[in-house]
Amino acid sequence: MKVGKVVSRPPMYINENASVLDAVKMMSENRLYGLVVKNDAEEPIGIVSERSVILRFVLRNKPAKEVQVKSIMRSPIPTVSEGDDVKDVAKFLSDNALTRCGVLDNDDKLMGIITITDLARYISVQSITDVLVSHRNKKYKYICKVCLKGTMEPVFNGAGEITVFKCSNESCGHTE
Amino acid sequence: MKVGKVVSRPPMYINENASVLDAVKMMSENRLYGLVVKNDAEEPIGIVSERSVILRFVLRNKPAKEVQVKSIMRSPIPTVSEGDDVKDVAKFLSDNALTRCGVLDNDDKLMGIITITDLARYISVQSITDVLVSHRNKKYKYICKVCLKGTMEPVFNGAGEITVFKCSNESCGHTE
Repeated sequence: MKVGKVVSRPPMYINENASVLDAVKMMSENRLYGLVVKNDAEEPIGIVSERSVILRFVLRNKPAKEVQVKSIMRSPIPTVSEGDDVKDVAKFLSDNALTRCGVLDNDDKLMGIITITDLARYISVQSITDVLVSHRNKKYKYICKVCLKGTMEPVFNGAGEITVFKCSNESCGHTE
Repeated sequence: MKVGKVVSRPPMYINENASVLDAVKMMSENRLYGLVVKNDAEEPIGIVSERSVILRFVLRNKPAKEVQVKSIMRSPIPTVSEGDDVKDVAKFLSDNALTRCGVLDNDDKLMGIITITDLARYISVQSITDVLVSHRNKKYKYICKVCLKGTMEPVFNGAGEITVFKCSNESCGHTE
């Protein structure tokens, strides 16, 4: 089964400057667990999920209205192609400890987001288990959107709060 | 397969008066997606999960250190018995749109927490899909821990923030 046949629901979009409060409100009202983030030019530039909110927002210890979506999103969007087999997409999710990724059409345009829930009925128990367990066994990495080499690592203060995320690649040093 | 055979990892505990920041820190350091909440008498009284944090914390628009675990936990803990078949546990999770529940031993003591991830390798694709999809199709209900009849419903202010959760049972009216 090709993944392009399985992507059914169009994704919902949120602007990169919207707040985490806006994003979670949109997710909870629509019972979605992820959104696509667009910039002002309406280009899709990232995704946010419940996991991003947990790992990249809560430990900042700030009110949800004061943190922007762009500082917690995963960017660039991890993607597969519409012609890829669902088994390979499950492996891609598992290898990268993801719950969702973008699906590109034949013109390399984002046609939608595929999640482990969407895939579940088309793959084996083993593949589903691999994806679910990958989050326990692998580090959930955020690649630096500037250098695309380092990973964004939290910097904690003495109170156990995240003050900023910093790229692990010293020659880059991007923070967000 | 009996669920008691599948519960492997002992749960981690957090005090009900700890903050959401403490809970999420403990979850992210240990790569757990849920914790058991205890009161000062060391009795297990609830569970918190990533989903509780999303649905019951973020929209309050407060820093994570200012919100206590007891105001976002699910209490009482939804439970099954160690002798229950994994298929029936999957149905219980799906019927109640849960990702995890407690497992009681033959003395009705909490022996651990079982999650859809723990169950995955022992149940069918259909059962896994049912559990995963249930979160999209069903409302994630928090039963009132005081009257055990109403559900805790968010009360929003004009700014779209949750000010409090209130029991839907008018003769109870518990808020948290």
